[in-house]
Amino acid sequence: MSLALLFGAAGSHPASWLHRGSRLAPPTDLAAYVSTARTAERGLFDLFFIADTPAARTENLHVWSRFPLFMNVLEPVTLLTAVAGATSRIGLGGTVSTSFSEPYNVARQFASLDHLSGGRAAWNVVTSANDYAARNFGHAKLAPHAERYRRAGEFVDVVRRLWDSWDDGAFVLDRDRGLYFDPAAQHAVHHDGAFFKVDGALNIARPPQGHPVIIAAGASDTGQDLAARTAEVVFSSNPSIEAARDFTQGLKARMARFGRAPSEMKVLAGLPIVLAETDAEAADDYARLQELVHPDVGRYRLGMDLETDLSDLPLDEPIPEDRIPKSANFHKGFFDDILRLIRDGNPTLREVYLCYERGRKTITGGPNRIADVMEDWFTSGAADGFMLQFHIMPRGLDLFVERVVPELQRRGLMRSAYAGATLRDHLGLRRPSRGERNP
Amino acid sequence: MSLALLFGAAGSHPASWLHRGSRLAPPTDLAAYVSTARTAERGLFDLFFIADTPAARTENLHVWSRFPLFMNVLEPVTLLTAVAGATSRIGLGGTVSTSFSEPYNVARQFASLDHLSGGRAAWNVVTSANDYAARNFGHAKLAPHAERYRRAGEFVDVVRRLWDSWDDGAFVLDRDRGLYFDPAAQHAVHHDGAFFKVDGALNIARPPQGHPVIIAAGASDTGQDLAARTAEVVFSSNPSIEAARDFTQGLKARMARFGRAPSEMKVLAGLPIVLAETDAEAADDYARLQELVHPDVGRYRLGMDLETDLSDLPLDEPIPEDRIPKSANFHKGFFDDILRLIRDGNPTLREVYLCYERGRKTITGGPNRIADVMEDWFTSGAADGFMLQFHIMPRGLDLFVERVVPELQRRGLMRSAYAGATLRDHLGLRRPSRGERNP
Repeated sequence: MSLALLFGAAGSHPASWLHRGSRLAPPTDLAAYVSTARTAERGLFDLFFIADTPAARTENLHVWSRFPLFMNVLEPVTLLTAVAGATSRIGLGGTVSTSFSEPYNVARQFASLDHLSGGRAAWNVVTSANDYAARNFGHAKLAPHAERYRRAGEFVDVVRRLWDSWDDGAFVLDRDRGLYFDPAAQHAVHHDGAFFKVDGALNIARPPQGHPVIIAAGASDTGQDLAARTAEVVFSSNPSIEAARDFTQGLKARMARFGRAPSEMKVLAGLPIVLAETDAEAADDYARLQELVHPDVGRYRLGMDLETDLSDLPLDEPIPEDRIPKSANFHKGFFDDILRLIRDGNPTLREVYLCYERGRKTITGGPNRIADVMEDWFTSGAADGFMLQFHIMPRGLDLFVERVVPELQRRGLMRSAYAGATLRDHLGLRRPSRGERNP
Repeated sequence: MSLALLFGAAGSHPASWLHRGSRLAPPTDLAAYVSTARTAERGLFDLFFIADTPAARTENLHVWSRFPLFMNVLEPVTLLTAVAGATSRIGLGGTVSTSFSEPYNVARQFASLDHLSGGRAAWNVVTSANDYAARNFGHAKLAPHAERYRRAGEFVDVVRRLWDSWDDGAFVLDRDRGLYFDPAAQHAVHHDGAFFKVDGALNIARPPQGHPVIIAAGASDTGQDLAARTAEVVFSSNPSIEAARDFTQGLKARMARFGRAPSEMKVLAGLPIVLAETDAEAADDYARLQELVHPDVGRYRLGMDLETDLSDLPLDEPIPEDRIPKSANFHKGFFDDILRLIRDGNPTLREVYLCYERGRKTITGGPNRIADVMEDWFTSGAADGFMLQFHIMPRGLDLFVERVVPELQRRGLMRSAYAGATLRDHLGLRRPSRGERNP
């Protein structure tokens, strides 16, 4: 069972930072990241993960000041490099958008992280899903969904080819022969595509992992195609074990279209957790968190994923049909989840926002209940592992490592020590040979 | 006297890596960077500095395999973040080109480095000076010199405004009031310029230094204008003390046009050094290094800066006049230096390449001679300090810290301890208030 941790200083619930049991740390302070990554490493997690978007909200700041989504964050690759120096085994993954960067720069950044961490880097490929980001890069709004994904696909292909600019071991540093590198070991990229033109070689040795691990999410058909073709780790987000199994099986079946075997991808189900000593305590903590969600935060957060403005609507009446868009442009998965909630029992706006969570609904419980859920999902084929998000940090993670990890080990579901040194080793993913994945 | 160190694992001479006395370390190995930065910190240097270009050569690899200029390097901001974790006081500067990046991304990277290092970040603003770089980013060749500098100027302005997206102390993390940040403390950027359009706020708190320190080189008139308007540290490169004094005085006089005082900029003269226990030993080491320069390396390196192909010319005859371009497009300073050498005594191609060095000619000597040169340059107003480059590393730096630093302290030219915590403190540069430097 593969385990990733989604970092949140205070936790991943919109009201985590308001809960008295959570950590209250300035998000630009490295200490919280380092101590969290070290705890996850003690718990033998595969991956420490940082989400990101290259934008801060600039409107409705009275709302975002209560729910500071990416308002003050360190740039992911820089941050992960700092965490690399304070850890030794755990994988280090971060989000970098393909919509607002150049393949050469991104290839360099992740190759550097992979070298500096001894083969622990992973890149979460996203296309960005908000117009705030677009406006920071000269665009009035995001490109359409399909175009963003075409660009992302080409971007990943170019980055992979750049990582293969040199044979493994090209830099021989041979003083006797006067050769710093073998001149025959460079393989320049000559790419002339729809979005990018790159004619050159990356100026860094092939990464320790060959290629840093490629992560993708992607609930849409286009997103699943990109994942099936390029991703080695996929974060899934499904409301039920059945839906998750269908998703995982469907995605793995889709890999065959691109000549890939199912074992070349690990699907990690997003799992938001409130963990306490007992099931009852955990349920209380979750109820307290929900109470702490300010109504303005509730309706804006919902409106963001439903891609509509709900700010003028009464809280205790259903959302009028004519306020619901016909289809999603941003996160199709989140949008569909909300639609399902709305169609199911005619809830009020307040009921919808208190019920809605991005992706899978939070599970609450003591150590055994959490282990049971994970075992069920894993053994039923719903996922190869989990992307854990704790709502109260660091308490949730501490307790998980102390109580749930030993229980999972006892059940034979988790390793008892890291077997290898790289993230690919942890995940059981093969190191690609030079050139084999270049289209 | 301000001191910066230009990092080179083996040294900064083209044949450094071939010298038996130098370090032979894979350039993707952090250990060499860390131990060098720590030594420089022990020597109370202001700044540890990484040069960069976003390209590897792809032609004439038989030459570049002997002189591996930027062929295998870590991405600078990633690398400096790793060095930050292993040091506590020394400033951390790196080159990022304005020609192939987006202001929002660069602003985030250096703001992150400044937060992660506790206020020690510096950004060396360059426009890039080779077509190899251009071809990695979709262009057949570099934009013309003047256009690159217009873009650079606008780029720096936008980055500075982005660093000022938030008041100092905006993130109050006040649970009682439910305020993560003060909604009135955000100042979004609305920029619509010739090169960039940015409409948003940076998603990171104002950096500890307010703005990371801005570094520039720039020998051309356009480059000097950009430096006079925006730079706080300037790396100068002049062949003599008189030329350096003229440059420094001229540049500081030029600052008045932009409403700046001379004290707002430190000019650091590039100083390539071969340091040994005695003057004679140092001279021998230098002679040995020059012998180690392969003729192909000599002529290509010269041809690169003279912006012409010298590969077919006989080594022991002068360079024919018709092979010399009328003017420079890349590094005007380097180009002019070579012209001066050629005009002075009709040297052969071999004599020119053995004599030519980028910028100031190497000084060789024991500790006292080096201290004398530095004192002369400093007290005569040729520079506010130095960008030291040792040709044999780590030996040169070790000996410098052990023998030259105490001598400079004895002469009252260097601090005996760091007085402050940030790079601005070391350099004696004021922390800018929010908004004061925004055009």
